[in-house]
Amino acid sequence: MPGLQCGGSPTQASVVAMKDSLPELEVTLADVGERAALSAIFPLLPRGENLVLGPGDDSAIVALGQSQVVISCDMMIEGPDFNREWSSPVDIGRKAIASNAADIAAMGATVVAYEIAVAAPPTTKLADLVDLASGFARGIAELSPGASIAGGDLSTAPVLTIAVTVLGELLGTKAVTRSGAKPGDVVAVGGDLGLSATGLRALEQAGSDRDVIAALVADNAAVRHHLAPVPPLHLGPQAGVAGASAMMDISDGLVLDATRMARASVVDIVLDHALLTKALGANNMISEHDALYGGEDHSLLACFPPDAVIPEGFVMIGRVVESPGPPRVTYQGKDLSLDPGGWDPFQDASVDW
Amino acid sequence: MPGLQCGGSPTQASVVAMKDSLPELEVTLADVGERAALSAIFPLLPRGENLVLGPGDDSAIVALGQSQVVISCDMMIEGPDFNREWSSPVDIGRKAIASNAADIAAMGATVVAYEIAVAAPPTTKLADLVDLASGFARGIAELSPGASIAGGDLSTAPVLTIAVTVLGELLGTKAVTRSGAKPGDVVAVGGDLGLSATGLRALEQAGSDRDVIAALVADNAAVRHHLAPVPPLHLGPQAGVAGASAMMDISDGLVLDATRMARASVVDIVLDHALLTKALGANNMISEHDALYGGEDHSLLACFPPDAVIPEGFVMIGRVVESPGPPRVTYQGKDLSLDPGGWDPFQDASVDW
Repeated sequence: MPGLQCGGSPTQASVVAMKDSLPELEVTLADVGERAALSAIFPLLPRGENLVLGPGDDSAIVALGQSQVVISCDMMIEGPDFNREWSSPVDIGRKAIASNAADIAAMGATVVAYEIAVAAPPTTKLADLVDLASGFARGIAELSPGASIAGGDLSTAPVLTIAVTVLGELLGTKAVTRSGAKPGDVVAVGGDLGLSATGLRALEQAGSDRDVIAALVADNAAVRHHLAPVPPLHLGPQAGVAGASAMMDISDGLVLDATRMARASVVDIVLDHALLTKALGANNMISEHDALYGGEDHSLLACFPPDAVIPEGFVMIGRVVESPGPPRVTYQGKDLSLDPGGWDPFQDASVDW
Repeated sequence: MPGLQCGGSPTQASVVAMKDSLPELEVTLADVGERAALSAIFPLLPRGENLVLGPGDDSAIVALGQSQVVISCDMMIEGPDFNREWSSPVDIGRKAIASNAADIAAMGATVVAYEIAVAAPPTTKLADLVDLASGFARGIAELSPGASIAGGDLSTAPVLTIAVTVLGELLGTKAVTRSGAKPGDVVAVGGDLGLSATGLRALEQAGSDRDVIAALVADNAAVRHHLAPVPPLHLGPQAGVAGASAMMDISDGLVLDATRMARASVVDIVLDHALLTKALGANNMISEHDALYGGEDHSLLACFPPDAVIPEGFVMIGRVVESPGPPRVTYQGKDLSLDPGGWDPFQDASVDW
């Protein structure tokens, strides 16, 4: 691959042309090496106006609208976090952006930049790395337009490993933590509940039938949402402006995440059956169990004071009340926080490590 | 381990007490689960005064002295980046801090905070994870006192994987990039040259003799520097204040990194044999070859205008001159930039992936 090895920074068009000109798209990272791999993906990385100094030096420099930075990180690892039989590299990139962007939105903040480290086996196809970078770019365009990929790292590991750190800024509001819910507040959700879990179950039920999987991946709305969620993250800053008292993203299921919020705020959260049913609305493919316990939707769970004007897109699902004892999440008279579900990477991962 | 499973956030003392009370220190992450593992390491994580909101919410918030953030990231992966036969978990944590802190210092900036994602096999001992976190804390105390660990992620992977993102701020100076070197500038280095490579070779020559390895790891200065470098990173901001025209950290060897600087600045860098010999000084265990080509010292390579007062700790090793053709690094009349050395994670890693 001398054209790759010696190349500087090819444009996106030249990368595509290069790929088209290869009889095999099977060229691997071991074939081309680190420099050519970086040259192939650099042109794909979004650079917003806030990027004062981009990739290529020891560090990058990002301009903020204020002198505080909101920061979070989340790893995605082949095996526990995604299955390459189901997820395309583009979808893996999109989901890595979604899970990180949701943590910034859940503070009422706006994403400014991402720092992305990728480690891949040397046998990884260059085309897959390029598609992964395209997935990052697409996720950013969908969920945090104007944000930059400030920099990153490319290395080698036994399985595809993606570590994203995301930076955000608070524009005109203070941070909305999970500990500020007050008795009398309205509990609302922005985005889907249980849709990702519904999609995951459909994939699991498809077994190893490649045609069935391909059809699900292409067309099924729940499966699409599981593989590459596009939650309404613009609602996060809107909730902050509207005076939300507490907020978090629902990554581990409504009951578990509401339990965390109840405990942090020292309140009870009362989920309402009629409101939850109404919130699920016409989406009758979602079971009540998945709505309560399904993870990875990355929707926003927020509490608003009773006099707040709740932004359009949030749907009321319950109320905050005083906690007579240990904080709880109740539903139809039952304390669901006693067995809130959840997943432990060290105890529940069904991988042979 | 009910005491661990149900515990909130034990203090460092209680973690130590807990470990002492266990007949086996062999308890693994799979035995105790994610929550207990996090509870064991949270008390060890440094929280500087700049940490407005620490771990425990969707994101953390870090206060900066200005509205720009300097950012970099670097992964360390078992196999290509470290060998657990040689490196203790404390040293692995220290080195992860050093390699990241050096990228901030090399911009003339000061570290504010780290975001650290760790993925480990479920069979990893809890004691090793605690030691890794202690290594992060020790590295921060040594190299960036006052900086915080703002947050992180804990997950599972086939080999120990550490992804660090580091944030810095520029206090009173502009960023020192690698592209600003000008003809007439003095070339100087702050920190060791070739010491890490000398230590690596000593470890490689020890073969599998555990006693020899243990003695080297405990006592040999070059080996200690390879396993847990403590470069003089305070020189980075000092160089910025002194008006350094260009700077970078030497992670891949003097010749390769100087070649990158020469190309970015479009100049020739002339390394001086007598000065380099003097710079190595009494350290006669380091060969000229290792001083030129050895990586991982994380020392600072800086250029200063001829009238600058160079901070104590930097040693002059050459001059910047006009480039008559393609930028070069010359030494004793030879163009070393034609074959600058270096390492490719996809083509050179001696791991069976």
